[in-house]
Amino acid sequence: MKILSREQIENSLSIPQILEAIEQGFITYSRGEAVIPPVASLHFTSPPGDCHIKYGYARSGKYYVVKIASGFYDNPKQGLPSNNGLMLLFDKQTGNPICALLDEGYLTDIRTAAASCIAAKCLAPKNVSCVGIVGTGSQAYYQLKLLSFATKCRRAMIWGRDREKARKMTRQDDLNEWTFEIANDLEQLTAECNLIVTTTASSHPLLLADHIKPGTHITAVGADDIGKQELDENIFMRAEKVIVDSRSQCAAFGDVSHALKKGVIGPEKLVELGEVLTNPSLGRTSDSQITVCDLTGVAIQDLQIAESIYSVHGLTSRS
Amino acid sequence: MKILSREQIENSLSIPQILEAIEQGFITYSRGEAVIPPVASLHFTSPPGDCHIKYGYARSGKYYVVKIASGFYDNPKQGLPSNNGLMLLFDKQTGNPICALLDEGYLTDIRTAAASCIAAKCLAPKNVSCVGIVGTGSQAYYQLKLLSFATKCRRAMIWGRDREKARKMTRQDDLNEWTFEIANDLEQLTAECNLIVTTTASSHPLLLADHIKPGTHITAVGADDIGKQELDENIFMRAEKVIVDSRSQCAAFGDVSHALKKGVIGPEKLVELGEVLTNPSLGRTSDSQITVCDLTGVAIQDLQIAESIYSVHGLTSRS
Repeated sequence: MKILSREQIENSLSIPQILEAIEQGFITYSRGEAVIPPVASLHFTSPPGDCHIKYGYARSGKYYVVKIASGFYDNPKQGLPSNNGLMLLFDKQTGNPICALLDEGYLTDIRTAAASCIAAKCLAPKNVSCVGIVGTGSQAYYQLKLLSFATKCRRAMIWGRDREKARKMTRQDDLNEWTFEIANDLEQLTAECNLIVTTTASSHPLLLADHIKPGTHITAVGADDIGKQELDENIFMRAEKVIVDSRSQCAAFGDVSHALKKGVIGPEKLVELGEVLTNPSLGRTSDSQITVCDLTGVAIQDLQIAESIYSVHGLTSRS
Repeated sequence: MKILSREQIENSLSIPQILEAIEQGFITYSRGEAVIPPVASLHFTSPPGDCHIKYGYARSGKYYVVKIASGFYDNPKQGLPSNNGLMLLFDKQTGNPICALLDEGYLTDIRTAAASCIAAKCLAPKNVSCVGIVGTGSQAYYQLKLLSFATKCRRAMIWGRDREKARKMTRQDDLNEWTFEIANDLEQLTAECNLIVTTTASSHPLLLADHIKPGTHITAVGADDIGKQELDENIFMRAEKVIVDSRSQCAAFGDVSHALKKGVIGPEKLVELGEVLTNPSLGRTSDSQITVCDLTGVAIQDLQIAESIYSVHGLTSRS
């Protein structure tokens, strides 16, 4: 069994290769060619935290993946990152463990931001005036790193509950191709930005339907469990197109689930990202439309990123 | 994160310590003091196989466990063991991975045999005349290793579809305290033995109700997924006491599930092993009773054995 450290993983990561692998993964998933059971999870109360186990395989693939990711939201008080985790690849012919990717949650961050980048490529309006990032955690940072593969726009506006954390993020050296502003409030952010990504663990709506201007694309990546919500349900009514990474997951616990439960939209409005990748007319068809993409994180992304990293190390060194 | 190899794990394993930890685990579980969600699983068809993910924690404990175990039943054709897997311990305060136990399925074998040993200690008749083992795989071997902690009897009768495999097992050096016979058929085994353990991946009943003599205890460990069955449902009707490791798991996919589905017994007949450990009068109360224990394997066992191994290595060496 090969064991890869976070450093080895970071050093071998190629963003373009990951984007291609994850696009292909979404297509495979939406064609029904993958076996992805419901997410398994554990919840903790003191301190508050959750652990998600995502697992599955592509019918035509060589491996199955088991990914364990945790979020403990009080960790930063002790100077620890909120997220942690690892991915495991197993041989689909024998069940033998093949590779442990001890990525500490890094690959989950990357594959989440990669999905958002793919969504932006499909769904953002032609001219992005300013990228709006809601949240200031590690996912906000990776969004900016990956979105530069989806748009030429390098203006970004950040909103966070803690302005100091927002300012700190804008000062990171490897984000210096971006020009930053700190939003005073979310109304300012929605007025300025037409490509918005929400990345928080909020349990109540942050973006309100009335504030979203025509021609905006919003990707929501924060709601990955029951009880989390970043978008006002009415945003899904105003949106011409509602895209999801997974119909079943988003209906169960994504941001979309709140709109479905309240009857604001019906399930027939949901289109999977993998379907848009195959048939772009299912996505944005005019620059004045509001589009929303709800991402809950699907095991096919974990499978694709783990295989992609393993393929580099599996060929170049011995296990 | 500490990484322990199979060799390190085998060298540090103390059977008495494991038996105590797992007994305590069953008690904690049956008191409702553990959080053990339903088993997550993947199924494969070509080649046939399954992967079970068991996970959870004790409310008062320091860690949560995620155990991944696979069974690929054509592996022996390639000279590989059917079972493989690993266990992971995480810090319940932060989500940080603490220890990867790369046991290749060894700890799953041990904790399964340990549960069977605990069941035999509680439920076997006072005088065991002969131990009957149904099956000749690795679990059959570990049953014999562990059952010597539950009974003074050292006579064993083995039944397997493949007599040569049965003979091979009886010749293993470290089982030389046992006197072996190979059963011609299961009728002979049930006539000779009053402590019987079934360890196969059978999908149809092997032991028949009419053949079980009064005073027999049977532990069934093979049925760990939907579609598996080792015991004729009517055995559960004949049995005075029906013990399960987990009511919910056994009702979902254990040997007991077939008897419940057909209405042969009702769920009120089921008593958990952890309840018997606390209150022995719930178990065997006379030497003439037939008792059955259905073991599906509960994450609390994985938690207890992983913690037990980690406690040795965590204290004596650096991670």
